[in-house]
Amino acid sequence: MEMDEMLEELVETIKEHYEKREFQQIKTILGELNPADIAVLLEEFPENQRLLLFRLLPKEEAADTFVELDPDTQETLIHGITDTELREVLDELYLDDTVDIIEEMPATLVKRILRNTDAETRKSINALLKYPEDSAGSLMTPEFVDLKKDMSVEDAFKRIRRTGVDKETIYTCYVTDAQRHLLGVTTVKELLLHDYDDLIEEFMETNVIYVNTLDDQEVAAQQLSKYNFLALPVVDMEERLVGIITIDDAIDVMQEENTEDIQKMNAMLPTEKTYLKTSVFETWKSRFPWLLLLMVSATFTGSIITAFEDKLAALTILTAFIPMLMDTGGNSGGQASVTVIRAMSLGEVNFKDYFRVVWKELRVGFICGVSLAAVNFLKIWFIDKLAFQNDEITLIIDLAICLTLIVEIVFAKFIGCSLPMLAKKIGFDPAVMSSPFITTIVDAVSLLVFFGISSAVIPQLR
Amino acid sequence: MEMDEMLEELVETIKEHYEKREFQQIKTILGELNPADIAVLLEEFPENQRLLLFRLLPKEEAADTFVELDPDTQETLIHGITDTELREVLDELYLDDTVDIIEEMPATLVKRILRNTDAETRKSINALLKYPEDSAGSLMTPEFVDLKKDMSVEDAFKRIRRTGVDKETIYTCYVTDAQRHLLGVTTVKELLLHDYDDLIEEFMETNVIYVNTLDDQEVAAQQLSKYNFLALPVVDMEERLVGIITIDDAIDVMQEENTEDIQKMNAMLPTEKTYLKTSVFETWKSRFPWLLLLMVSATFTGSIITAFEDKLAALTILTAFIPMLMDTGGNSGGQASVTVIRAMSLGEVNFKDYFRVVWKELRVGFICGVSLAAVNFLKIWFIDKLAFQNDEITLIIDLAICLTLIVEIVFAKFIGCSLPMLAKKIGFDPAVMSSPFITTIVDAVSLLVFFGISSAVIPQLR
Repeated sequence: MEMDEMLEELVETIKEHYEKREFQQIKTILGELNPADIAVLLEEFPENQRLLLFRLLPKEEAADTFVELDPDTQETLIHGITDTELREVLDELYLDDTVDIIEEMPATLVKRILRNTDAETRKSINALLKYPEDSAGSLMTPEFVDLKKDMSVEDAFKRIRRTGVDKETIYTCYVTDAQRHLLGVTTVKELLLHDYDDLIEEFMETNVIYVNTLDDQEVAAQQLSKYNFLALPVVDMEERLVGIITIDDAIDVMQEENTEDIQKMNAMLPTEKTYLKTSVFETWKSRFPWLLLLMVSATFTGSIITAFEDKLAALTILTAFIPMLMDTGGNSGGQASVTVIRAMSLGEVNFKDYFRVVWKELRVGFICGVSLAAVNFLKIWFIDKLAFQNDEITLIIDLAICLTLIVEIVFAKFIGCSLPMLAKKIGFDPAVMSSPFITTIVDAVSLLVFFGISSAVIPQLR
Repeated sequence: MEMDEMLEELVETIKEHYEKREFQQIKTILGELNPADIAVLLEEFPENQRLLLFRLLPKEEAADTFVELDPDTQETLIHGITDTELREVLDELYLDDTVDIIEEMPATLVKRILRNTDAETRKSINALLKYPEDSAGSLMTPEFVDLKKDMSVEDAFKRIRRTGVDKETIYTCYVTDAQRHLLGVTTVKELLLHDYDDLIEEFMETNVIYVNTLDDQEVAAQQLSKYNFLALPVVDMEERLVGIITIDDAIDVMQEENTEDIQKMNAMLPTEKTYLKTSVFETWKSRFPWLLLLMVSATFTGSIITAFEDKLAALTILTAFIPMLMDTGGNSGGQASVTVIRAMSLGEVNFKDYFRVVWKELRVGFICGVSLAAVNFLKIWFIDKLAFQNDEITLIIDLAICLTLIVEIVFAKFIGCSLPMLAKKIGFDPAVMSSPFITTIVDAVSLLVFFGISSAVIPQLR
């Protein structure tokens, strides 16, 4: 919140300077900010002013700020700047960032960007663009520090000093052979703690953890976080080192995957842009399909009610308990499914745990069912019947409702934990098997159970 | 998946060696693994065997593995090992990890741990333990590299070489004055790219971004991720540098906060342990309160039905559409609330955007409502009425249902985006204002709208 207020004030100050054409003052203000903040700030200005402000930034800062901007803003900026300026920005960018930007741009701008990079960079960019979206290959940068095993610590530092300026991280160094096979890994910390004459091969870590270019980027991010690495090597089919994934990109992937999971768990198709940048139509597109599917499925529940219409007409009080039974079933199932989906995303639960999970959920469901049924029994008896003097309610009706609660909650927990695990097993995304979907199934089953139990035990309905 | 299978095979191999008392072979296997993997592996063995396996690890690896174990396993291990062994583990641990472990242990073990640390460490631990849970202070480690501004690059490297071995990260170095005030920050990368005689103050970054010890750990994690830092300095009330938060701990906080949000969004109280480690009773405790609250709230919806009982009895076909209307309203509201909650967690949306968000959701709601109503109109007419020959359905009834859909979806989107934002504004956790809670409100309103519209336009009900 403080940050926001500070930002708003800064925007005001800069606007004032802008009107008075006091660009030197603006330069000073921008010079004190971090590129991530400058980017947020630039988004607050209209297009034409934004271009002028961007031009006030020193070269390196301009590039760092550019990376942090929204794709739309990047696009308008590229349209506005000259080829020379574009080349300066591109020179400062890390290759993986350039590729990220290119992936969001229309074809004409891509051509212009590629025209303004040197031949070698262009070749690397084209190679990176070929990897499938969401693969480790598309996330990696080919700019890493590579050492040879017979180098001394001193040689290593010389090499880092010479080549490090263009690398996204220099702290993890990779040892390769002549064919670029990954032999080992070491860190600048290790290098600093060893003597200058020590050879790399004497202390490098040879059990290297890596991913393949075609592995899912989510797997790569999980590995980085699990092993507390700052960077993870990526190898190709021939086990040659082709790039590294850095921790900052892994964090972005983790947050994106979390957002995607949350969207899917709540009946939405994933959207790529931030909320305020997503148009009304795009938002509709992400929400309509699931709403439609669930609406149509819910009509099955409706037809169950239609089938028992006569009995409901004979004892209308039963209708009053339908929302409570449906909601409680849905919520119980949702809890189980969401818990299991999250545990699977975090790698805490796998299909081999299926029976442990089911056994646990059955017990949790039973305790939840019994405790809720107990409260409900008393509430129906003392509030609905005695306090509100609803004479239609009998002990048998009260018991039938409570029995339904127990059965439906146990069922909801069972189906709630089972569907996501089975979905993953057969290769579907478990996040889709979440609350809304499970609610629809549980609704129908709850009503069947309710009408089944009621018909069996309530004398008026026999 | 591959990892799991590899792990299972390893467990089998080690068990075989264990039975044959071939401990040297086990040592070799463990020596090739990363501590994070050894921890997962140890959890697969019974308590007594686990202790023996743990003792096979070299000192440093033992400590790194210990950190990765579950608190329960840590506790039994501490019970099993001697004071000398405990001291060896504690010597190798970073202070923030020691504090994390202590926070999970019973009082007697805490005493034993503190007894086995030297006086200085004990003092630091006690200082860290005083910070409130979930504060930046409780997450930080006091072990960082501090430099003086008049040091040369060469001095800096000497200092890092001398003191760096015990620091969790050496890559970000902090420049402080004699009173430990934070003057600037630099990185090993910067140091490596400058000449040995350059002075730190000539190139250090003086606009340092930091947090306060009492700031929320979530804020610290967001800052680290926003600025792509590897470490973030933490200052006390007098603006003295007291510790740093490293990226690996920030990632853990981010994942915990994501899990918490997901739990709250789905009507659960947050649990701290992983799913399989949480007991049935603890799981019940996290799920029961919300189920109870929502069950009781749902009975209001029931009483709305009771109030319209006569009209439903006069036109029983209406009951069949209740589940569809309730589910669609709930799903629509849930979509809006979850989207807005997530956007707020990621810092994309603030209260100042309230009217923009509402205006957007109203439009999305209208388009969703109209498109779903159109499908529903045709479905009721051609399938329910014509195909299934349900003569009770008239054009007016069909229109009343579709009009209800549009009104309830627009309302659901409005309430779905408003409640989380208002909750946050008045200091509540927005994640609680999510699908289940909103479903309950939307259910009641949907029925009121449905019965209101039906009573007004359907001739049989007038």
